[in-house]
Amino acid sequence: MFNRLVVLSVALLLSQAGNTQTVLQKVNSYVKANELALLKEYKEFVAIPNVSSDSVNIPRNAAFIVKMLESIGVKTQLLDGTTPGVNPVVFGEVKVPGATKTIAFYAHYDGQPVNPKQWAAGLEPFKPVYLTAPVEQGGTIINYKEGEPVNSSWRLSGRGAADDKAGVMTIIKAYEVLIKNSIRLKHNIKFFFEGEEEVGSIHLGEIFIKHKDKLAADIWIISDGPRHVSGKKLIQFGVRGDVNMDLTVYGPKRPLHSGNYGNWAPNPAQIMVQLLASMKDENGTVLIKDFYDDVVSLSASEKVALAKIPNIEQTLKTELGIAKPDGDGKSFYELLLLPTLNINGIQSANAGKLAANIIPTKAEATLDLRLVAGNDVARQIEKVKAHIQSKGFFIIDREPTDAERQLHARIIKITHGSGYKAQRTPLDLPAAQSVIKAIQSTVDYPVILSLSAGGSLPLFLFEQHLNAKVLTVPVVNYDNNQHAENENVRIDYLWEGISTMAAIMLMD
Amino acid sequence: MFNRLVVLSVALLLSQAGNTQTVLQKVNSYVKANELALLKEYKEFVAIPNVSSDSVNIPRNAAFIVKMLESIGVKTQLLDGTTPGVNPVVFGEVKVPGATKTIAFYAHYDGQPVNPKQWAAGLEPFKPVYLTAPVEQGGTIINYKEGEPVNSSWRLSGRGAADDKAGVMTIIKAYEVLIKNSIRLKHNIKFFFEGEEEVGSIHLGEIFIKHKDKLAADIWIISDGPRHVSGKKLIQFGVRGDVNMDLTVYGPKRPLHSGNYGNWAPNPAQIMVQLLASMKDENGTVLIKDFYDDVVSLSASEKVALAKIPNIEQTLKTELGIAKPDGDGKSFYELLLLPTLNINGIQSANAGKLAANIIPTKAEATLDLRLVAGNDVARQIEKVKAHIQSKGFFIIDREPTDAERQLHARIIKITHGSGYKAQRTPLDLPAAQSVIKAIQSTVDYPVILSLSAGGSLPLFLFEQHLNAKVLTVPVVNYDNNQHAENENVRIDYLWEGISTMAAIMLMD
Repeated sequence: MFNRLVVLSVALLLSQAGNTQTVLQKVNSYVKANELALLKEYKEFVAIPNVSSDSVNIPRNAAFIVKMLESIGVKTQLLDGTTPGVNPVVFGEVKVPGATKTIAFYAHYDGQPVNPKQWAAGLEPFKPVYLTAPVEQGGTIINYKEGEPVNSSWRLSGRGAADDKAGVMTIIKAYEVLIKNSIRLKHNIKFFFEGEEEVGSIHLGEIFIKHKDKLAADIWIISDGPRHVSGKKLIQFGVRGDVNMDLTVYGPKRPLHSGNYGNWAPNPAQIMVQLLASMKDENGTVLIKDFYDDVVSLSASEKVALAKIPNIEQTLKTELGIAKPDGDGKSFYELLLLPTLNINGIQSANAGKLAANIIPTKAEATLDLRLVAGNDVARQIEKVKAHIQSKGFFIIDREPTDAERQLHARIIKITHGSGYKAQRTPLDLPAAQSVIKAIQSTVDYPVILSLSAGGSLPLFLFEQHLNAKVLTVPVVNYDNNQHAENENVRIDYLWEGISTMAAIMLMD
Repeated sequence: MFNRLVVLSVALLLSQAGNTQTVLQKVNSYVKANELALLKEYKEFVAIPNVSSDSVNIPRNAAFIVKMLESIGVKTQLLDGTTPGVNPVVFGEVKVPGATKTIAFYAHYDGQPVNPKQWAAGLEPFKPVYLTAPVEQGGTIINYKEGEPVNSSWRLSGRGAADDKAGVMTIIKAYEVLIKNSIRLKHNIKFFFEGEEEVGSIHLGEIFIKHKDKLAADIWIISDGPRHVSGKKLIQFGVRGDVNMDLTVYGPKRPLHSGNYGNWAPNPAQIMVQLLASMKDENGTVLIKDFYDDVVSLSASEKVALAKIPNIEQTLKTELGIAKPDGDGKSFYELLLLPTLNINGIQSANAGKLAANIIPTKAEATLDLRLVAGNDVARQIEKVKAHIQSKGFFIIDREPTDAERQLHARIIKITHGSGYKAQRTPLDLPAAQSVIKAIQSTVDYPVILSLSAGGSLPLFLFEQHLNAKVLTVPVVNYDNNQHAENENVRIDYLWEGISTMAAIMLMD
């Protein structure tokens, strides 16, 4: 009996594996047969400007998603918060008769700010075009006419093409493929597409609280961020937290001729570089007191998982043109488990061709602080502020008054976002094991298990407000320039993303 | 006999003084009576874009000056260099029968680059308008209709309104006023208006060499830079030299997500701030080896002149909002006699509202090095380069190759202008004494004698190629924002400038 049971179980497993493969073949065939239509629709989606603060176009993005979902029979609803003017969440739900589990899928449709001038010639953030490769790797624009065949190694350019409309698109299209091929669903499916991720998901908490009942799920699948540098599929068990700080230091009240006042009038760019230089050593190690103190140590099993991740440093060094990485000898993935202090940008007057011989009036810098398990947003900001104060700065959160300028040799304006903390899900969670198995069924190499993405998502909110478990399953290529100019997605990664999401929808 | 001679001399002096006063009254009355026409014409002049590199509009400026001079009977000629495409010098000459001395007047009609976005609302670099005061001091735009009276304390805005079309205008109009009032000239007059001063007078030397015979003069009067902060007229006996350096340091070849790569990929903004921070201490003293070593010490009489200049530091501190100046306790005017290292501007990606969470690909900074008597351009640049090299940088003058990126952890691109050295004229030169006396006759306070302007002009070229003696006689207000946004000139300074230049034309 015992033997028979074992045999039966194995047979069932094989049969399921066989079924899975058949289903995945159907999925892939359908995508192949419909790729031009899928891309045409995706280009229309990417062409809608999606900077989080763009109150005119954000609703157009939401409407486009609603249309995509409704066209395949998914009932949708726009979820608002309690604060007026929140960019709406597009929510959709599919109830499967007899299903006992619910899988919820998250992606965000808003994008980072754009400075079109910084995009390569011929590229515009919201006019997607095909590229032979990323422009930084010598890619050129393809003179494409609608209806012509598309090479799946091409890139599609545009803000949000990778981060994170690719998430939205692959989730919806995975469901569409299953429905169109009459593949039987086992689990209830929920769709949740946010519109404020790139401004720190500032209202996600209140949306969760307000709509908690709708949002119950056994597992949340977050589709965001890039796959492994090797191109392999991966699952993230956590994310870093994040908060931005804007710093402004002050020089003379009006720009001064650098000759007539040079040596006498303090130069704010000089003040800023001295301050920022004091924050890190030459290896990129942060010198701010107690900066690394809160970090939770890795468990033994986490250390094992960390060690299994393929080393990518030589690939990165070659591709990115880096001779010596920061980090004082620590490995790439080890460094992702530490908090960061990054200069996102610095500006004082103009450098290069537009430079004039002046002493500028102010210097601005924006810092990005990534947080890891154990870090607290407020505490991390306080450490930076304490450091700045220790350098003799008078700290304010607005422009200085004339009286303050007369009193303090060093004045700094500091503002910061509300930010959010990091999140980690246990490796051995049963639902997580099902997801691993499902994704593993789509590829013939070991799927990579990562303890934490380097990037940030407000995943702690899912735990805090929904008591939910979350896993991040990225779909896009790592060289996608997300958050920067010339953002792009590789087309076959979209197709593989659809396959990944479909497999998860059909998981055990 | 001795007594009679003395009496005669005194009588003659008094009579001359009386004549001078009468003549100056005539000058001032003429200006007053014609101020609206003078301003209308000046606004037309300022409205012609004059950025040195603007090859379309630079000739329009030259043509405008030619028209102004020819309309008052001055024969003009455009002086070219030996290099093709040089912005022309507008040269004019007036030969006075019986004259034994020649006074040459220099100003420049080109202007610094502009970034219109940085100008205050309503102000455009080449649409001059009247302001109640500088915008930084709360000034507002006057809704002026042509023909309405003008308050002489108003400012006229525009690139070049102060630096240095004011020089061109006051020189030409001084001559016009003398001619229109039939005031007898004693000296030959030469006019020389350059079009490349703001790009370092790169062809002035070749123009001097090519046209040396035309350019003989007993004294050259340079009209550029601001009057004393107190508002008093001053004479500069020297100028600082100047050279710019552009620095670019490199990070990853493409912009990276600050989370996905943060802690591992070196940040070029961080590299740049560390490099620039190493160049100066907290008092603004340059830490580069031997930076101050070449500086020529002041003579005893120069020290006396230096000590006589009114202290302006409290005025500047209040107006400019500075609590503690740089300079380690040295006085403002003492600091102008030392070389500088100024950050004109720094930029890496975007700060503030446009900032994105990225690791930028590069960071750029432009440095301005002012030189004083004793400094040599090439030697000063070498000191900076040696410092940069000592910090472990691999120095190139173009973009790095992939191979270089793999070899060197720190790469910097350094380019620099040709620059020019400082210049000083002896205090006791007889022609200089005549100029002092002439300007002194226009005011009832002691004219200020300054050993060196803080700013730069290529005056060493006059000595080198023409064997000429030069004095700088500024006409504009010190709070003119020259080289920066919201440049402006105070109207009564234009009128007083005309009076100054007319007095020099009539000097002993």
